[in-house]
Amino acid sequence: MAQGWTQRAQDIESFKVMDLLKRASELGAAGQDVVHLGAGEPDFGAAPQVIERAKQLLDTQPLTYTAAGGIQPLREAIALFHRQRYGQAISADQVLVTAGASAGLMLAFALIAEQGTNFLMADPAYPCNRQFLRLVEAGAKLIAVDHRHNYQLTAEMVEKHWDQDTSGVLIASPANPTGAVLDAAELERIAAVVNARGGTLVVDEIYHGLTYGVETPSAVQIDSDAIVINSFSKYFGMTGWRLGWLVSSKEAVAEMEKMAQNLFISPPTLSQYAALAAFDKDALALFEERRLELQARRDLLLSGLLELGFKVPRVPEGAFYIYADASELTADSFAWCWALLEQAKVVATPGADFGANHAERYVRFAYTTSKDRIREALSRIRQFIEDQSE
Amino acid sequence: MAQGWTQRAQDIESFKVMDLLKRASELGAAGQDVVHLGAGEPDFGAAPQVIERAKQLLDTQPLTYTAAGGIQPLREAIALFHRQRYGQAISADQVLVTAGASAGLMLAFALIAEQGTNFLMADPAYPCNRQFLRLVEAGAKLIAVDHRHNYQLTAEMVEKHWDQDTSGVLIASPANPTGAVLDAAELERIAAVVNARGGTLVVDEIYHGLTYGVETPSAVQIDSDAIVINSFSKYFGMTGWRLGWLVSSKEAVAEMEKMAQNLFISPPTLSQYAALAAFDKDALALFEERRLELQARRDLLLSGLLELGFKVPRVPEGAFYIYADASELTADSFAWCWALLEQAKVVATPGADFGANHAERYVRFAYTTSKDRIREALSRIRQFIEDQSE
Repeated sequence: MAQGWTQRAQDIESFKVMDLLKRASELGAAGQDVVHLGAGEPDFGAAPQVIERAKQLLDTQPLTYTAAGGIQPLREAIALFHRQRYGQAISADQVLVTAGASAGLMLAFALIAEQGTNFLMADPAYPCNRQFLRLVEAGAKLIAVDHRHNYQLTAEMVEKHWDQDTSGVLIASPANPTGAVLDAAELERIAAVVNARGGTLVVDEIYHGLTYGVETPSAVQIDSDAIVINSFSKYFGMTGWRLGWLVSSKEAVAEMEKMAQNLFISPPTLSQYAALAAFDKDALALFEERRLELQARRDLLLSGLLELGFKVPRVPEGAFYIYADASELTADSFAWCWALLEQAKVVATPGADFGANHAERYVRFAYTTSKDRIREALSRIRQFIEDQSE
Repeated sequence: MAQGWTQRAQDIESFKVMDLLKRASELGAAGQDVVHLGAGEPDFGAAPQVIERAKQLLDTQPLTYTAAGGIQPLREAIALFHRQRYGQAISADQVLVTAGASAGLMLAFALIAEQGTNFLMADPAYPCNRQFLRLVEAGAKLIAVDHRHNYQLTAEMVEKHWDQDTSGVLIASPANPTGAVLDAAELERIAAVVNARGGTLVVDEIYHGLTYGVETPSAVQIDSDAIVINSFSKYFGMTGWRLGWLVSSKEAVAEMEKMAQNLFISPPTLSQYAALAAFDKDALALFEERRLELQARRDLLLSGLLELGFKVPRVPEGAFYIYADASELTADSFAWCWALLEQAKVVATPGADFGANHAERYVRFAYTTSKDRIREALSRIRQFIEDQSE
């Protein structure tokens, strides 16, 4: 065999936004005031209770490896939180603590996606999902979705695209980049189709808790064999702590824990102990305040974008993204985002990072910065559009 | 396709020692005094400087995602440390910071091991290596090694076992479970064979710094295309912090960083910033003291085991393990370890966890506990052996 890199490595794509972010970082270092609507992480950080717990732990004991599936108190705390949030009792051995949702997605696909099979998922979507599948020599079968179906798959689409090599369906709700929440009744219909076909449903629920005016059931309430991915990154504001979890049947969790022993040893220890404090009553009250703040930011950003000529046919009900149709303003959202950065010093993510489905029309704006900064960004975008049309 | 788990998931094995550790934990919880010679992690913990740095950081800023390859100051600090340790200048873009050596191994195999190919490695070895390969639909070709070659591969073995589907060779030096250090001249010969065949050399150097009376060059000094895996877990005592790094060519590092963006997002942020303090002069002096303590423990445990009838034909020169031939004492080291736990309350790891090469003869003892506890363990093992022979 010739020296060289695998086809797998060549196929896995970098985030196109990385060069843009690098340039934004250079501009910032050169003293320019850059407004960031690019980042997929809230600006709040962890709750004070979590930080205090982490500091206490640093004073008391060496941070050794833990069980691969997480420390037992955290598995139990997550099971309890699940019951409080959804009203469904689950046991701690249905919970696997993971090194971020990334590790959860990898374990789920390692368990379910046999080599050569495909997983159905929406386009646009979080781009890493198809790369986790590529890693294990399986693949993603992307289904174009648009505003007519709220940027989510339908049971009808799943039926239509299912083939003999399909091993399951990935749903994300609320979704990145669209903020779209899948209707509960449609999720039930999708689960029924997947089960009838003998496949597995994987649902990314990392933006649960960040919804504005709608309720989101967990997929494991509908399908006990589903694998549900969750995270401390978004609702709990702990991105850099690299901690998440998944929920599924006991048997699936045990099988994924066995793989996690080998592939990860264990999730970060300090993050695990500190995360216990994220379920404190005061911390949960803080997260609710933050949710209301995010909702206000969404309203501000959405109305501003609509005024500027972007099209957003349906109000995004979750996460912290607006996936705006910029086709009235540009035929090339990638070039538009670069020009916006260079001329207006505003960072937004071009659609190209999320798939191939008319990506050139779309720009993702994240409302992960303050209302004042969002106002500043809107003002700069207005000026930028005016300058362009001159 | 029928609902079910992949062949991959079924093939990936759990650690056999986990049940033993679970039982040890139960005994401990029931008030029994258990001596642990099982754990692959030092009892020292992180340096005080690292802990202090972590606490400072918790007070100052939210822990956000970082660049996938790690924060720039840490990449630079590792490059400098590499130069200080080995006398070889490397640049920061030859360094990739990873979520533990586990992530480094996964990225290396994802880059190099095409599906259907095999990697040559020694048996016994760290068991996860073959599972990382299984994850990406490649495989391990295990080569039985014994004390005659210091439990390491030779260039001759590599030549003999290389076939048309071989993509590279994995070396671990110092090795787990044997503590064996590969001779530098033999490493050069192996690298020459691998390069002549067009393959890639991956070298696990996570126990570098923990050697007793021998020098260990880094494989990238010998072969600039090698991928070298390292870690903050062992020498730096930061197991639960989940932080490691790899060194290779700029081009390979860039390719692995691209995959890391997708598969991990970024290594734990707090661990990255705190690890900068691990290179402080005082911290490095502490690690040297610890190394001398480990050497004293090795000498104590080794002489004790030899007295008890274990055979260790060659003094292990690195890591913190003794892989002892127990064939004079038992024909079944797995059952022997269980009996040792139940009757003598001492934890040691049976050979079965490290491969199939006469594993039933071997027991791995880790000197990751104090000299007093090692003396206590030796005394208990003596009594246990006497009781058994009655």
